[in-house]
Amino acid sequence: MPDEQARREEALVEEVLASFDGASPRLREVMRSLTKHLHDFVREVRLTEREWAAGIEFLTKAGHITTETRQEFVLLSDVLGASMQTIAVNNEAYGNATEATVFGPFFVENSPEIAQGGDIAGGAPGEPCWVEGTVTDTDGNPLPGARIEVWEADEEGFYDVQYDDDRVAGRAHLFADADGAYRFWGLTPTPYPIPHDGPVGALLEAVGRSPMRASHLHFLVSAPGRHTLVTHIFVEGDEYLRRDSVFGVKDSLVKRFERQAAGTPAPDGRDLGDRTWSRGRFDIVLAPEQADAGSAG
Amino acid sequence: MPDEQARREEALVEEVLASFDGASPRLREVMRSLTKHLHDFVREVRLTEREWAAGIEFLTKAGHITTETRQEFVLLSDVLGASMQTIAVNNEAYGNATEATVFGPFFVENSPEIAQGGDIAGGAPGEPCWVEGTVTDTDGNPLPGARIEVWEADEEGFYDVQYDDDRVAGRAHLFADADGAYRFWGLTPTPYPIPHDGPVGALLEAVGRSPMRASHLHFLVSAPGRHTLVTHIFVEGDEYLRRDSVFGVKDSLVKRFERQAAGTPAPDGRDLGDRTWSRGRFDIVLAPEQADAGSAG
Repeated sequence: MPDEQARREEALVEEVLASFDGASPRLREVMRSLTKHLHDFVREVRLTEREWAAGIEFLTKAGHITTETRQEFVLLSDVLGASMQTIAVNNEAYGNATEATVFGPFFVENSPEIAQGGDIAGGAPGEPCWVEGTVTDTDGNPLPGARIEVWEADEEGFYDVQYDDDRVAGRAHLFADADGAYRFWGLTPTPYPIPHDGPVGALLEAVGRSPMRASHLHFLVSAPGRHTLVTHIFVEGDEYLRRDSVFGVKDSLVKRFERQAAGTPAPDGRDLGDRTWSRGRFDIVLAPEQADAGSAG
Repeated sequence: MPDEQARREEALVEEVLASFDGASPRLREVMRSLTKHLHDFVREVRLTEREWAAGIEFLTKAGHITTETRQEFVLLSDVLGASMQTIAVNNEAYGNATEATVFGPFFVENSPEIAQGGDIAGGAPGEPCWVEGTVTDTDGNPLPGARIEVWEADEEGFYDVQYDDDRVAGRAHLFADADGAYRFWGLTPTPYPIPHDGPVGALLEAVGRSPMRASHLHFLVSAPGRHTLVTHIFVEGDEYLRRDSVFGVKDSLVKRFERQAAGTPAPDGRDLGDRTWSRGRFDIVLAPEQADAGSAG
């Protein structure tokens, strides 16, 4: 590239960066970094005008498929790993605190409360799964009364809110007991695809990636003075662990879900008839609230 | 930042980059660069979850305001200088060849043809402006028959296609004569704002920038064996030259438009009555076609 060309390109970048000098310090910082990286991208790959137009067309399609209940831009952020990187940046490593992962679009406020050992399924189809564990601080002290929200897809691969019949199923909350322990019945998690009939699905197909998410169970865990944890647990041996479409899997979050033959007595004496079931354990460690500094979410 | 945190963030970037290994070489290159810069942006500014959500909301609004006749994503690319950088990358500096600038959304195929000295105004309101010049190659050889498309906004700040009455005005094409020369009547260019009632307008306001474009007249010039030139000429002394909202201004494209008092004889003897008018000169130099290598547009 001739010097004059490099000079022109760099002068343009400087001109655009300077245009944000009238913004608040934080907005200026964000816009300068965003703009610098955008220009570096265009310059590095020598983006063609046709590719630029394809990018505009992609964003236009994403905008037009997005509704109150379908968020293609979140999916785009997810499949580029930007959602997970934002989670990482806002939940910095803190000793032995449990790792966070993506929140996803299927959490709902005001889930039903269940007692210890209750069932979150609410009629959702799937294999019963016993989940138990503790909630502690990073020194191992139990956190009695910690609030534990759990939610998951049924064995058809759908969350309750994806049905059009107003069902509430596969979600609930409970509170850790005096020892910081908890236990409940859910469903053995199964894999499912993210919505892939839009431009994000087309992108995944073009690059040879699967839309499938590794099987998982969502947790949102909070306690006074503690950093709120949004995470999943994943199923050891799941075929999508190494190619989760949104990069949510962390080794520390992969748990053994022990398959139980039909007739194996349940921990709480529940009669499961001739059904198989599984059991998993998830000990949750919450960082102190001050580790929250980076997060404004 | 603790080592463990940096390790986690970098491992995530590597995991996402590797997910494009199944793509074609060019798509892989583009997606890797885009993704790397996106993650670097999130990490550098330590993007908060609230800021991430604001970004999603911005893109959603941009998608919803975009229609067949309103392209908010193009505006976004324009005001971030990404359109102009793409133009720069695809129209590399070549000797004394005329510089390119943004194409804009208002070009229309099949404009009327005018003879040398004809008027492109077609009834559009504005001060008459005589424009003349030559079209040559980079060695100064004239390019007879070069096709010159010109288009511009009227003095109200609107292009013909922005009215809902199907008018064709302020646009035409003509051909360079045997000496490579051309001349026509247009309108003295005036400044106008880009559409700013959407999220891009809100962004400009938040950072303290004007939506105004510097006054300009569009050219698209083509000749056999020559790189097609898309450019503007700008008006010397225009108040928006140093803060054009889309960064389209290049010093080499700023021209003197000499104001003429009412009654000053026109170059072609046209009777302009008691109107003032202006005159400008634009000598166009086209690079050879092979300089087109980077462009697929």
